[in-house]
Amino acid sequence: MSKPYVLGIDIGGTNTVFGIVDARGQVVASDSIKTRKHNKFEDYIAELHDGIARLLRANEAEDKIQGIGIGAPNANYYTGTIDNNVNLPWSAPNLPLADAVSRSFGGIPVAVTNDANAAAIGEMTYGAARGMRDFIMITLGTGVGSGIVINGQMVYGHDGFAGELGHVIVKRNNGRACGCGRTGCLEAYASATGVARTAREFLEVRSDPSTLRDLDIETITSKDVYDAAVAGDKLAKEIFEYTGKILGEAFADFIAFSSPQAIVLFGGLAKSGDLLLKPIRESMEASVMPIFKGKTKIILSELKESDAAVLGASALGWEAKTRAELTPDTSVVAASAAPVAPAVNPTVAEAK
Amino acid sequence: MSKPYVLGIDIGGTNTVFGIVDARGQVVASDSIKTRKHNKFEDYIAELHDGIARLLRANEAEDKIQGIGIGAPNANYYTGTIDNNVNLPWSAPNLPLADAVSRSFGGIPVAVTNDANAAAIGEMTYGAARGMRDFIMITLGTGVGSGIVINGQMVYGHDGFAGELGHVIVKRNNGRACGCGRTGCLEAYASATGVARTAREFLEVRSDPSTLRDLDIETITSKDVYDAAVAGDKLAKEIFEYTGKILGEAFADFIAFSSPQAIVLFGGLAKSGDLLLKPIRESMEASVMPIFKGKTKIILSELKESDAAVLGASALGWEAKTRAELTPDTSVVAASAAPVAPAVNPTVAEAK
Repeated sequence: MSKPYVLGIDIGGTNTVFGIVDARGQVVASDSIKTRKHNKFEDYIAELHDGIARLLRANEAEDKIQGIGIGAPNANYYTGTIDNNVNLPWSAPNLPLADAVSRSFGGIPVAVTNDANAAAIGEMTYGAARGMRDFIMITLGTGVGSGIVINGQMVYGHDGFAGELGHVIVKRNNGRACGCGRTGCLEAYASATGVARTAREFLEVRSDPSTLRDLDIETITSKDVYDAAVAGDKLAKEIFEYTGKILGEAFADFIAFSSPQAIVLFGGLAKSGDLLLKPIRESMEASVMPIFKGKTKIILSELKESDAAVLGASALGWEAKTRAELTPDTSVVAASAAPVAPAVNPTVAEAK
Repeated sequence: MSKPYVLGIDIGGTNTVFGIVDARGQVVASDSIKTRKHNKFEDYIAELHDGIARLLRANEAEDKIQGIGIGAPNANYYTGTIDNNVNLPWSAPNLPLADAVSRSFGGIPVAVTNDANAAAIGEMTYGAARGMRDFIMITLGTGVGSGIVINGQMVYGHDGFAGELGHVIVKRNNGRACGCGRTGCLEAYASATGVARTAREFLEVRSDPSTLRDLDIETITSKDVYDAAVAGDKLAKEIFEYTGKILGEAFADFIAFSSPQAIVLFGGLAKSGDLLLKPIRESMEASVMPIFKGKTKIILSELKESDAAVLGASALGWEAKTRAELTPDTSVVAASAAPVAPAVNPTVAEAK
């Protein structure tokens, strides 16, 4: 075993991407399968195993994998299961993800967490948050996810589900309906779909001219709004200002909670650059308690989006290895395991 | 040195209480001085030293103190200083509290934190949160303070000031002015003074009868509202329901952040019992994300209010001792010290 590797797996709603990652955080090779091809969880696991085994053979890495990390929606770090998932095709209250993958590879240690936590671990290990002990990762994709790091450790909470900052309430009355079943969540405003909703609202309520009016209002996307704003469209810019204001106000509350050194933004919407960053920073600084003014940085992820998911998960693979060595009676992170400070920790792309 | 002791000091706006505490968490003896008697910080420290020295002599404990813990407004765990204080008579951007107290006792290790954090450490060490790795302490006194514990560690944030949950925004538009200079903070609604403000608002805006109308509306207190509610006054009960609803909604957001096992309530207002607890629990359960429903308990502090401040601070005294042993070059918690998992941790009463 000359070069030790870990395996990072990112289970998304459409694709499951997996990659072999070396100790320096380089993705040696990667491949993917369709997440929704099989209606039975066992069949999915079997195909995932075959795909990974093929990749390992092609890279002569069969005996080099030290641990496997998996980022997946609703994955529970403590139990190794996917709980109450709504975005994946296999219905069961608890899918034994870590256990199934570990078994299929003869007991290699496996750790799982949700995609946004994996994103945070990747950022801490390989990205913009290297060396930070206190930061919050916010993923602005189809939804709004978050991974919180405090004292250098991921925050999992007492049940493994902490860090749902996309679902703090930013509008207490007459808020937008959210996919979680409630109203007024940050995600309903600050996700890519939230931006599209804001566009539809603005276009309906207001009468000022905008190039967005040339588009079909029902199918408008955040990308359309971005393109229009870049081209100078005033209403499109205001949509970003509105979005940034809401994010900045929410961030001010997050700062009152954990006073992070930085809030790291990741995901499609984060690529909007100053269109979004400027109003976020202005709103956050205007909203934050005096004692916190000018302290918390808003920065962008430094991980390439195509690699980030696998990299983040892979970092959790090193943790799975370390934990298995500390608790040699189990290869899967057990429900009773107390959260230890991860020596190395994980990320994943386009969380949620 | 047969019996090791620690010293707990609680610096309040009016009194500074200090006590000798043994390893089982018993307050062996305590005394106090007036906080505001001296306009010079040095004079205050000198009197504090004399008072403590007298107490130690009277209890034959001069050589038994292993560490000193101090809870004080705006005290910074990392630097050992009181920063930008507004409630104490000594004006300076950074008062070297830990250093001054340590020097006055020949270098005994000293650690400081703010009063609400001290309350949380006390609850974790001696109170209702024993054995919990993830909980939030909320102090409902003149203000609303908080101490957050995650993975068994206090959350200090990157600058030492994390855990200002009294200052998350619960009303984004036309919120009440808060002492922090902003508007709409939780503290402006859910503190004892917030309850009195609600009473004044309700009495002015509404016309239904209430025994509270017999009182001078300008000097009405939360105690008046409590007494009226206990006697069956409908409007007074509604004031508690209004307060509990706001707290429960805020708690639902806190749960989305750190998913604590429990939220522990402390302070004068927490003694209102079911008048406040029932609406908090109902509002929190109605507001929380489905994934968190029924998981987080709302419980009351188990520490006697008169002892809690000193006990909480004293627990930090043990931590100061441990830390001094780990970093023998300093007796005072230094700015660069990384937060270690406290073996034993601190509390203080009536935070804020």
